Amino acid sequence: MSMRPAVTTLSIALALACLAVHAAPRRVPAAPAKARSMQEIIDASTPGDWRRPDPRDTLYMDLADGHRVVIELAPAFAPQHVAQVRTLAREGYWNGLAIMRSQDNFVVQWGDPEEDATKKKSIGSAKEHLPAEFTFAAKDARWTRLPDADGWAPQVGFVNGVPAGHDAKAGTYWMAHCYGAVGAGRNNEADSSDATELYVVTGQSPRQLDRNMSMVGRVVQGMEWLSTIPRGTGPLGFFEKPEQRVGIKSTRLASDVPRDERTDIELMRTDTPLFAELVESRRNRRDAFYKVQAHHIDLCNVPLPVRAAKTR
Amino acid sequence: MSMRPAVTTLSIALALACLAVHAAPRRVPAAPAKARSMQEIIDASTPGDWRRPDPRDTLYMDLADGHRVVIELAPAFAPQHVAQVRTLAREGYWNGLAIMRSQDNFVVQWGDPEEDATKKKSIGSAKEHLPAEFTFAAKDARWTRLPDADGWAPQVGFVNGVPAGHDAKAGTYWMAHCYGAVGAGRNNEADSSDATELYVVTGQSPRQLDRNMSMVGRVVQGMEWLSTIPRGTGPLGFFEKPEQRVGIKSTRLASDVPRDERTDIELMRTDTPLFAELVESRRNRRDAFYKVQAHHIDLCNVPLPVRAAKTR
Repeated sequence: MSMRPAVTTLSIALALACLAVHAAPRRVPAAPAKARSMQEIIDASTPGDWRRPDPRDTLYMDLADGHRVVIELAPAFAPQHVAQVRTLAREGYWNGLAIMRSQDNFVVQWGDPEEDATKKKSIGSAKEHLPAEFTFAAKDARWTRLPDADGWAPQVGFVNGVPAGHDAKAGTYWMAHCYGAVGAGRNNEADSSDATELYVVTGQSPRQLDRNMSMVGRVVQGMEWLSTIPRGTGPLGFFEKPEQRVGIKSTRLASDVPRDERTDIELMRTDTPLFAELVESRRNRRDAFYKVQAHHIDLCNVPLPVRAAKTR
Repeated sequence: MSMRPAVTTLSIALALACLAVHAAPRRVPAAPAKARSMQEIIDASTPGDWRRPDPRDTLYMDLADGHRVVIELAPAFAPQHVAQVRTLAREGYWNGLAIMRSQDNFVVQWGDPEEDATKKKSIGSAKEHLPAEFTFAAKDARWTRLPDADGWAPQVGFVNGVPAGHDAKAGTYWMAHCYGAVGAGRNNEADSSDATELYVVTGQSPRQLDRNMSMVGRVVQGMEWLSTIPRGTGPLGFFEKPEQRVGIKSTRLASDVPRDERTDIELMRTDTPLFAELVESRRNRRDAFYKVQAHHIDLCNVPLPVRAAKTR
């Protein structure tokens, strides 16, 4: 019995695959089911099913260990916070700072670890104060609703590729705290975030934070470099010793990075028939591995495929 | 502005804390709300709110790097698989084997990485074949229902401390794939697991696997040693090189370990008024940090406190 899984390799980062562990003897395949697998759906996609993130809304966090984390900023959700992130990045605010918190099954957080207020790094031309931007109202939010039930929000779905909640009565939308969501840390006051400290969800979606935080974007590549950072042993997962922190070499907008140093990726659009088919392929697994179909998918379980851009 | 969070330290492993990042100036505290915080609830607990896992149902996986992972076996869910795990552990099956898969936002998996069937480690007196044990039927399952909505199961709650789903019509229960759930890998055939390969959920709860796998227990301590294992770069997160695997020094039942080498812990009971109050304190956060209360909690977001045993 081989250890190699008897399934097709999925080439995308977010693929959640089955737990097959033994190579089954090859048998005559049954007649193909009508429903396509996720991989078949991805393979059948056309260029119009993908979008390329705007370099001005793409943030590269290059860690001191050489790994790159790619964040797509989502200005629809918190425009002033995203503008602030752009300013901070352009002025090199995070360069030389560090990831100073890693709490198991929750978040990783970075910023200026300096505790002495008089020694903190200058925020340059960034604003001292930002308003709370927990939700936004829009008549056309490019909303793609997910029909599945959700306990946290009246509706769930996607705003231009980002998992989100929606209250149709109030007309508001907000980013959901799914794996990879990036928000601005704050104090108890709602308007106390200045976007210098950012966190990313690395654990079970803590959606109680939805509508409580100003959210700036989503990690679209490189989550594995954040999710595997050893956990801090101090309160809330902060590192107790400076040498435990993970250094940030630079955080730059892709638009400020020379073309040959960019990570050119494409994200699957979430407002297409193909994406709806992909979601259904995950809502009800029709491959031989699954014996019971869920007839449901949670917002934060929906795969959001990312691939290397086909051309420059 | 200090980086230290202005909140009380939570001493339990699964505490999900707020994202406060700046030490607020101390103000005159407001009159205490009636609702207690999770920490206050834990502090007010009595010995009867805790239970000590049976050493015969407690598995220590001691990794080659010296870290210990503690798994509570849950025989109610898959009695034959748990009996098999006990046999395999008692006969030292996993000793010297390895974790050979780490897939980001999904699972870590261990067993015998040998691909040549003729060279695989003997399973000793363990059974060659086990039945599928995906759900179980019981009249008295020690069921504590969570009133919150769930998209995956008609009802959710806890069976003696383990997050689970329940179908009242069918009279069945099953373990939910929450963070830390441990199951038996299998091939496409439902009855193809022999409990030699185990996996643990390290990412967003993949509850589409509920009712599809035979589940043996739950990691109650040491998840951080599994969740931070670098991700495998092969298909499904399998490691491509043997040296990337994480060695297993031994996997033993606590009852087979000398008393002074045991990790004596207590788990909070899930069938008490105190636990119900704890869940409510997380369903609706009443501390100053939260501006919007969720009026909901997902099964896999419920904290399950663990503490060092007070006495031996």
